Amino acid sequence: MPRRSPAVVLAPDSFKGSLSASDAAAAIAEGLRRVWPDADLRLCPMADGGEGTLDAVLSRGGQRLTAGISDVAGKPLAVAYGLIGEPATAVVEVAQVVGLTDPAVAAIDVEHRTTLGVGEMIRNRLDAGVRSFMIGLGGSSTNDGGAGLLAALGLSLTDARGRAIEPTPAGLATLAAVDASRLDPRLADARIIVMSDVNNPLTGERGATAIFGPQKGVLRERIAEIDGHIANFASLTEGALDRRAQDKPGAGAAGGLGFALQLIGGEMRSGAEVVADLIGLDAALDGADWAITGEGKSDEQTALGKTPLIVARRAAARLIPATLISGSIDRSALPELGRHFAGCFSLPSGPASLEQCLEDAAALLADRAEQLALLFDAARG
Amino acid sequence: MPRRSPAVVLAPDSFKGSLSASDAAAAIAEGLRRVWPDADLRLCPMADGGEGTLDAVLSRGGQRLTAGISDVAGKPLAVAYGLIGEPATAVVEVAQVVGLTDPAVAAIDVEHRTTLGVGEMIRNRLDAGVRSFMIGLGGSSTNDGGAGLLAALGLSLTDARGRAIEPTPAGLATLAAVDASRLDPRLADARIIVMSDVNNPLTGERGATAIFGPQKGVLRERIAEIDGHIANFASLTEGALDRRAQDKPGAGAAGGLGFALQLIGGEMRSGAEVVADLIGLDAALDGADWAITGEGKSDEQTALGKTPLIVARRAAARLIPATLISGSIDRSALPELGRHFAGCFSLPSGPASLEQCLEDAAALLADRAEQLALLFDAARG
Repeated sequence: MPRRSPAVVLAPDSFKGSLSASDAAAAIAEGLRRVWPDADLRLCPMADGGEGTLDAVLSRGGQRLTAGISDVAGKPLAVAYGLIGEPATAVVEVAQVVGLTDPAVAAIDVEHRTTLGVGEMIRNRLDAGVRSFMIGLGGSSTNDGGAGLLAALGLSLTDARGRAIEPTPAGLATLAAVDASRLDPRLADARIIVMSDVNNPLTGERGATAIFGPQKGVLRERIAEIDGHIANFASLTEGALDRRAQDKPGAGAAGGLGFALQLIGGEMRSGAEVVADLIGLDAALDGADWAITGEGKSDEQTALGKTPLIVARRAAARLIPATLISGSIDRSALPELGRHFAGCFSLPSGPASLEQCLEDAAALLADRAEQLALLFDAARG
Repeated sequence: MPRRSPAVVLAPDSFKGSLSASDAAAAIAEGLRRVWPDADLRLCPMADGGEGTLDAVLSRGGQRLTAGISDVAGKPLAVAYGLIGEPATAVVEVAQVVGLTDPAVAAIDVEHRTTLGVGEMIRNRLDAGVRSFMIGLGGSSTNDGGAGLLAALGLSLTDARGRAIEPTPAGLATLAAVDASRLDPRLADARIIVMSDVNNPLTGERGATAIFGPQKGVLRERIAEIDGHIANFASLTEGALDRRAQDKPGAGAAGGLGFALQLIGGEMRSGAEVVADLIGLDAALDGADWAITGEGKSDEQTALGKTPLIVARRAAARLIPATLISGSIDRSALPELGRHFAGCFSLPSGPASLEQCLEDAAALLADRAEQLALLFDAARG
């Protein structure tokens, strides 16, 4: 008896190390088509504010443009950004400016990396009349407390002798005074949405340097000193602006960009939630029978609000089951994940190495989706 | 909205190297209970005539008894067998008499192993009045063409000087004459069902020695000679009985036991089909919503009639979807498997070694069943 082919929303995050979110959605679609050639497949590749965010947002329209700004070492860099909507909102992916996976970044010691380029990006867009920003954190290689960003926007940072310091962790060691009188006045009219899934404060035991510093190259024995310099920078800057932000959730995101952006009025939001809104995930879910999401590796963090959970929550609000496909699932997280997902499934088809799984990811993902569709189809009877 | 808890038939084969069929069914049940505490779970551990067949059959009643017979080297061995029904049918698992995994067997060269004990088992049951037999092949370590079995039942095998030969591959090298006049006459009244999933003929390129000999220890360079001796034995024996069996499908099962048993009237049947009948699989499927089957490793052989396929066919006849869970699935077989199963799923939750998967098999199987149940539950909506 022929049944109506189902409508399925395919909303995976990227599978880090193997597949972009678009490629993942395409692989899932390929598998589902083997079972349901006529299915209404709604491809909604997702992102969380980190790498892939610009691609995900622009998949629904808008312009992809390029800006000339400074890289982490202050050298010229051409960076892609997006313009969407009317009046225009600029979409900036910090990972594209100061990204940790950029090979050029590895040559610069983290204590000399700056977020100057991110501030230049904002300033240049302000020059062009843009007053709305969506800035995706995540994947940054910097730990400058956002000093570079603020310096590019007019904050004056000087040492004891009144000389401008370098807006880097190394430069902050000699910071003596902060003057906010030249801070770009157009920021007062700007709306800045900051996309991040990090809730850490700027400094301290759970701060940016202690928690995220080491993966960016901060030496363990340097954490306390750098953290102290950033705390000093934050206090002086807060004093100069007569605002506070260093204890706000997410101040420690992207090496302190979360602090700097909140200090100039930025509003922190879940990256996946913002992306879901921008790509119209809710509309895609309307009337769907099933949602499939995914990511490279799932564990207890997934259940605390990573991209697949955002997809599952929005599906659940419409009584649509959401199934998770992941390259690898931490079994100890299954009881918690099971509360949110209509099944969590991993990629390997048998004993296999990580390398094999990464190499075969697209084919394995298509196969897994196909097999799940066979069960889904049978179960709805 | 509360839904009726489903009725699910759990009919896995054993997961070779890790779980018996009973343990596998129990693990699946544990996973399903996490989703459906009140589900009607019908545990039907399966077997294919090889190892585990006796356990599977006796799980539905009957007596487990022990017989004293000869092992592959002719030494005394206590072997379990079953008696079921009235009048009694004896259930014999050849793997328990001449099993390849028996450590004692490894000490005896395959050319000196005999199936004498299997024949003694039949003779002793005939002595006790039993006339109905179910003999599960599979897992045998012998390659004697069934000469041992026939010798135990009265067939006379002699060399050129009229001396009795050893009923082994080595002994058959000197076989000159076969006399069937003392073959047990009670066999004429016996009904012998032979359970096997092997279709190979006795000799030749697809014969027992060429195909299954090497895994039992037959040296490559000895295949042709041993095959010739078995062909000679078969022709002489067929002549003596004025019956033919060596070209029947399955004659090459269990090193030629398939030949010997068919020669004395045995009827070859799919082991899994017989077991399914004996354990009442069809009755268990009646009114069920879902069937789950499984095995250690799935490939194109699975789709050609291994135990999970038998379960799937019987489920399909009742319009019940059957899902396969396997320790490892050969991806190239998925297109064919997908025609029979409502999804095929493997155990690993991420990149993992074979050893890890074997060690964690029960926990992984429970997890996989749980996740599938979550999807099944959501899909039936």
